[in-house]
Amino acid sequence: MTRRIVRMAGDGIGPEIMTAAGRVLDAAAEKFRLDLSFQDCLFGGVAVDETGTPFPADTESACKAADAVLLGAVGGPQYDSLPPEQRPEKGLLAMRKALGVYANIRPVRNIPALAGRTAFRDGHLDGVDIVVIRELTGGIYFGAKDRGDDWATDECRYTTSEIERIVRRAGDMARQRKGRVTSVDKSNVLMTSKLWREVTTRVMAEEYPDVTLDHMLVDAMAMKLISSPADFDVIVTENMFGDILTDEASMLVGSIGVLPSASMGDDGPGVFEPIHGSAPDIAGQGKANPIGMIASIAMMLETGLGEPETAAAITAAIDAAIEAGDVTGDLGGALSTDAAADAIARRV
Amino acid sequence: MTRRIVRMAGDGIGPEIMTAAGRVLDAAAEKFRLDLSFQDCLFGGVAVDETGTPFPADTESACKAADAVLLGAVGGPQYDSLPPEQRPEKGLLAMRKALGVYANIRPVRNIPALAGRTAFRDGHLDGVDIVVIRELTGGIYFGAKDRGDDWATDECRYTTSEIERIVRRAGDMARQRKGRVTSVDKSNVLMTSKLWREVTTRVMAEEYPDVTLDHMLVDAMAMKLISSPADFDVIVTENMFGDILTDEASMLVGSIGVLPSASMGDDGPGVFEPIHGSAPDIAGQGKANPIGMIASIAMMLETGLGEPETAAAITAAIDAAIEAGDVTGDLGGALSTDAAADAIARRV
Ligand SMILES: CC(C)[C@H](C(=O)O)[C@@H](O)C(=O)O
Ligand SMILES: CC(C)[C@H](C(=O)O)[C@@H](O)C(=O)O
Repeated sequence: MTRRIVRMAGDGIGPEIMTAAGRVLDAAAEKFRLDLSFQDCLFGGVAVDETGTPFPADTESACKAADAVLLGAVGGPQYDSLPPEQRPEKGLLAMRKALGVYANIRPVRNIPALAGRTAFRDGHLDGVDIVVIRELTGGIYFGAKDRGDDWATDECRYTTSEIERIVRRAGDMARQRKGRVTSVDKSNVLMTSKLWREVTTRVMAEEYPDVTLDHMLVDAMAMKLISSPADFDVIVTENMFGDILTDEASMLVGSIGVLPSASMGDDGPGVFEPIHGSAPDIAGQGKANPIGMIASIAMMLETGLGEPETAAAITAAIDAAIEAGDVTGDLGGALSTDAAADAIARRV
Repeated sequence: MTRRIVRMAGDGIGPEIMTAAGRVLDAAAEKFRLDLSFQDCLFGGVAVDETGTPFPADTESACKAADAVLLGAVGGPQYDSLPPEQRPEKGLLAMRKALGVYANIRPVRNIPALAGRTAFRDGHLDGVDIVVIRELTGGIYFGAKDRGDDWATDECRYTTSEIERIVRRAGDMARQRKGRVTSVDKSNVLMTSKLWREVTTRVMAEEYPDVTLDHMLVDAMAMKLISSPADFDVIVTENMFGDILTDEASMLVGSIGVLPSASMGDDGPGVFEPIHGSAPDIAGQGKANPIGMIASIAMMLETGLGEPETAAAITAAIDAAIEAGDVTGDLGGALSTDAAADAIARRV
């Protein structure tokens, strides 16, 4: 069975990391005899340039027909002055909604060889192994917006079923890990957070009695992620809080250049992308770190395509390359984007 | 001229830190010949216990007639099951609105003697000297809320004038400091943030051309506060983002037990309180660190009562006591709450 993968390389360093990471996927596919087909689609700024819209209809239908979507990075200064509908970010939001990928999954695990590059003191990150699950298609991102002469509003809205499905993702994830979920809200102030806490409590009690559930206020979590990051297993939260907390959590690893993410729906393809941006300042120079993209490919294989063995081989190869210092300059190595990817491909 | 100070000691460790810190204020008032009068008012859980409501009308009118309000801490597990209107937090929100204290000011400055107690590596916090200014009476905290059987909503709303006045606070503050303001929003997603960015840009250009303004997205700020905290001078942001970012920023100091805050309106009294909570687990044991409360008294003298010289004497005394290790157990010292306050009073 051929698995169809849509590649949206996007802007800035997107194309070069997509190409380099592709060599790792090729090596893994050969070794594990996976039958993959690829289709390259326009997305983000490059799609605006060529079609006038960041998420063209052709790209949307290709994604919907695919088994998985790989995304490089989008955005760049040349798009910042475009009207709102043409901004690359709008494409991102439209794509999430169109594909129904409501669960954004971001693993953050201490990488000992990179811990010295973080802001944290030695030992502080020992044992850090977190997965943050962010609700991605609801909340204040997608609620009604309004604007008058001298005021503006954004509505944050959640329904019971939106909360139930993301909580189940967290419960399922915790079962494969240490069995602990920390749900983050602001239930002492927000009505949506009160509903969030009620639904989370009920779903976990009824459907995941074997998983330990804690609740934490978002302001407290912003502190605890720094003071005691090793205390957490699975963290689940709503869209806006998740945007902030996932980026904060990324600081627990020595470089955001190595971190992957997966965005999943119930059926339809997942979207797999590094968490870093399009880094227009270094685009085209062969300096970009391909590891975030390669790790996203590993997540695609594990979570999206059900090939955990292949995923594990890639992850082990990434760890070995980092350990050996066969990495790009941002991690203290001397390799180009392509050479860093090859160093991983070789180890798969 | 007698300055009238309302003291709301509140719950948990609130009363003991208020009493201990009062000795420092007494010593400072004597030395600098300040004429102060005090009135103790019920607020928070203790007010619920005695009057059924966390912010009684008597307390409100006393506050409105005062020159400054000192607040200890509110909340405790015994209040968590009360109906929403009786929660101590509701008193806090009602008090902020009633007194119109729209600007929450939180200084976070590296304290070298405490840097070793943070999660950060040596040197990382050198030069950290930030003031975060959080909008405190608008946004999603105070917008319309609604709830149905299987949904909930919170509205985030900002008006031009709400943004203008908080931006002016930031501009004024920057002029007394390094002349730089970083405004934090999510203008790539939220309508209120687009308005925020427009108004901030206009007010700063028209009224503070001498101050440098940068804009930063909230997710980027959640990272930069950790990776490059010494880069910032004054940070200004809306209520919900400010709640999260101020708590995150508090991790840049070795203990949240030492951090003060001021909440200011245009006229009427400011409210001065430590950022730590009511710590019910250690209440009544003489273990609580009084420094956050004492530093809040220094902010009251400087920002609220126009006595910068007295404020500076208290701040210097705090620094000297910390330097000498004359502190409570949370900072590695051996002193009780009262003894730690006396060690500062003696140095004023
Ligand atoms: C670009 C922006 C709209 C987006 C978001 O806020 O979701 C980004 O920050 C992310 O986290 O993927
Ligand atoms: C108790 C709560 C309502 C309050 C807030 O969110 O404003 C607190 O977290 C704070 O920051 O003062």
